[in-house]
Amino acid sequence: MKRISVIGSTGSIGTQTLDVLKQHPGQFSVEGLAAGRNIELFLEQVRLFKPRKASVADKDAADSLRPFLPAGVELFYGEEGLNEVAAGTDADTVVTAIVGSAGLPSTLAAIDAGKHIALANKETLVTAGQLVTELARKKGVSLLPVDSEHAAIFQCLNGERLSDVERIVLTASGGSFRHLNREQLQQVTVEDALKHPNWSMGAKITIDSATMVNKGLEVMEAHWLFGMDFEQIGVLLHPESIVHSFVEYRDGSVIAQLGNPDMRVPIQYALTYPERWPSETKRLSLSEAGQLHFREMDLERYPCLRMAYECGKLGGTAPSVYNAANEVAVARFLNGEIPFLRIESLIEETLSRHTNHSADDLDTIFAADRWAREIASTI
Amino acid sequence: MKRISVIGSTGSIGTQTLDVLKQHPGQFSVEGLAAGRNIELFLEQVRLFKPRKASVADKDAADSLRPFLPAGVELFYGEEGLNEVAAGTDADTVVTAIVGSAGLPSTLAAIDAGKHIALANKETLVTAGQLVTELARKKGVSLLPVDSEHAAIFQCLNGERLSDVERIVLTASGGSFRHLNREQLQQVTVEDALKHPNWSMGAKITIDSATMVNKGLEVMEAHWLFGMDFEQIGVLLHPESIVHSFVEYRDGSVIAQLGNPDMRVPIQYALTYPERWPSETKRLSLSEAGQLHFREMDLERYPCLRMAYECGKLGGTAPSVYNAANEVAVARFLNGEIPFLRIESLIEETLSRHTNHSADDLDTIFAADRWAREIASTI
Repeated sequence: MKRISVIGSTGSIGTQTLDVLKQHPGQFSVEGLAAGRNIELFLEQVRLFKPRKASVADKDAADSLRPFLPAGVELFYGEEGLNEVAAGTDADTVVTAIVGSAGLPSTLAAIDAGKHIALANKETLVTAGQLVTELARKKGVSLLPVDSEHAAIFQCLNGERLSDVERIVLTASGGSFRHLNREQLQQVTVEDALKHPNWSMGAKITIDSATMVNKGLEVMEAHWLFGMDFEQIGVLLHPESIVHSFVEYRDGSVIAQLGNPDMRVPIQYALTYPERWPSETKRLSLSEAGQLHFREMDLERYPCLRMAYECGKLGGTAPSVYNAANEVAVARFLNGEIPFLRIESLIEETLSRHTNHSADDLDTIFAADRWAREIASTI
Repeated sequence: MKRISVIGSTGSIGTQTLDVLKQHPGQFSVEGLAAGRNIELFLEQVRLFKPRKASVADKDAADSLRPFLPAGVELFYGEEGLNEVAAGTDADTVVTAIVGSAGLPSTLAAIDAGKHIALANKETLVTAGQLVTELARKKGVSLLPVDSEHAAIFQCLNGERLSDVERIVLTASGGSFRHLNREQLQQVTVEDALKHPNWSMGAKITIDSATMVNKGLEVMEAHWLFGMDFEQIGVLLHPESIVHSFVEYRDGSVIAQLGNPDMRVPIQYALTYPERWPSETKRLSLSEAGQLHFREMDLERYPCLRMAYECGKLGGTAPSVYNAANEVAVARFLNGEIPFLRIESLIEETLSRHTNHSADDLDTIFAADRWAREIASTI
C-alpha cells in the first residue's frame, strides 16, 4: 500500500492524481488532501478518500466545510494547514500539485519530513532550486517529476549514467497561438488563449504554453532536476506533443519517451516508480498519428523563453522575479487588463528593474517575489 | 582494456566494428579475427590490429596469407579456425558478424567458453534460439544485440522490468522497393534491389530488407532475445529509419531509441554496455529531419514477414527451413537465376514440403538446413 498526500487536490493535476488512485483500488491510501476554495469538489474528494488530514485556503472555507466532514478527518487551513498535509502525515510521497510560488514552503516542509516529492509545482525548483535540491539530497528523498516533459527525461535516463548524457531536449507544442506571427498576436483574446491544442490543463499553464513561459520554467526546472547546464538543455517545437522529450547520449543514441497527451501517465509513474503499473490510458498508435513534425525553436517569436534562459544562467533571484512577474501578468491578462503581448514586455520590464541577489534563503526569495509582484502589478 | 574477437571481420559489420575500435585507441585489444576469402583486406586488418589468432575460409586462403603475416599471429582456417577465434582466445566479447547459418557453431563455441556475444549473426537465434539462449543462461554470458532494431529495444529496456512490457515494436524502412506494388515488383532487377534507401549494408541483407525477410528474421530473433511472445512483437513501417524501434509499457508509456542510420552506434554500444562511450557519429537533428512517418505493416504486400511469424510460432525446424530457403533464393536471385518475386514463392514452396521437427540439437537443425537448401536449389 502506497501512502500519498496531495497538495492542490482540486486543481487539474490534483484531480487527475485522484483519478489515478481510483484506477488502483486498495493500492494507495490517501493520508492528506489540501485544496483552496473549491469546497464542493474538495468535500467529494474527502468523502471518497477519507484522508487523515485535510486543509483548505482559510478559516472561512474551513468553517463552511466542517459540518459536512466525515468522521476521522482532521481539518486545517492556510499555510499551517498546507504544512500539516505536506509534512504531518504518514505519507511516503507528497504530490505537490498547487500552482504558483505558494507551493514552495509546504514542499520544503515535506522534504524536511523525509517525504518523496511527486513534483508538479514547477515554481518550487524555479525559485528555490538550490535550496530544494540540496535539502532533498541531504534528506535522501527523491524528486519525481510529474510534468510530462520532465517525466519523459526521467524515464529516458533509466539505467543510464548521467555522465554519458550529452544533452536533453524538451519538446514544446508551441501553444494555442503557434500558427500566429507576432503581429497577429496583438489581437488575440483570453478565450483564444485558453484553447490549448493538445493538453487539457489549468488556465494559467495554458497561457504559459502560449507565451512559452511554461517551457522557460521547465528549462529551469530541468537544470535543477537533472543537474544539466543550460547549454545542455534544448527546446524543440513538436506540434503533436507525442514525443514528450528526449535525451541525447554521447554515443549518438537518442532515447525518447512518447505517448498520447494524458497527464495521468506521468502522475502514475511518479507514484509507482521504479515500477510501471497498468493504466487504462489510450495506447499510442504511431501509424494512426501517421506523421510527427519537428522544427527549431525561434527565440524571437518566443522572447519569454529567451528570458528564461537568461534568468536561469544568471541564477539568484532572477528566476523568482521572472516567475512572479509572469504570474501577475497572466492574472492581469486573464482579467482583461492587458493584451496578450503585454505579458512578455511586462516580464522584461520587471526584470530590467531588478537587482539580482543570490537565492540562499527563503526570505530573500520571497522578498524578490513580493517586489516583482508589486512592480508587475503597477507598470 | 576490453578484449574482443571478431568473426567475419571483412564484412559490413566486421569492418564497421574495427572502425569503432579505431575510434578508441588504447581501449580495445583484438584477440582474434576471422574472415573468409577477402585476403587483401584481412591482411590489412591483421597488420593493424595484430590479433593473437586469425582464421580464413580454407587452406588455400591460409597458404596465400601466411607469407605476409606479422609475427605473433597464429593462423587457422575453416570451421576449426572459426572456433579457435571464437573460443580459443582471451577475448571477453566475441562479435559474431559472419552472415548466414555458418555462424552458429562458432557462436555456440564462444558461449560455451564463457564469452559475451555481440550478436550480429541473426541466423544464430533464428535457427537455434532455444539452444543458444539456454546455453547463454547456463554460462552466464550476455547476448548483446548489434542489429539496430534489437539494440534499440535493448536500450529501451534499460532500468525497466520485463514484466512491465506490453509490446515491442520493430520499425522497418520498407526496403528498396517500398514504393512499388506487387505488380511492379515483377520487373525489378538485382541492381535496383541493392539500393537500400537508408542503410549501407551487405548485399544479402539489402535483398532481405526488400523482401522483408530481414524483418521476419528480426522478429524471430527478438522473440528469443527478449523472451517475448510473437503476439507481443509488432512491426511498423517507418521509411526514415530514424526511430530504430520502441517498447510499449503497460502504463501507456513508449520508450524509443532514435538516431541517424549508422551501424557503428549499436556495435559500439554492444562493446561498451552498460556504458556509453563517445562517438563521432553525426548527431540526429529532428528539426533537420522535419517529419517522421509511420504506417501499418501490410502482410499481403510482404508475405515473407507473414511466413516468418508463422514459422516463429511453429518453432522447431521451421525457422531454419525459412532461413535456409531464403539464403538459397537470394543467392539465386543475385545470380540472375530467378526473378525477385520468386524469392518469396520459393520459400513458401519449400516450407510447404517441410515436416516440422523440434530443434533440440544441432544435428536436427543442420539436417533441416541442408534439406531446405537442396529443395530450394532445385525447385
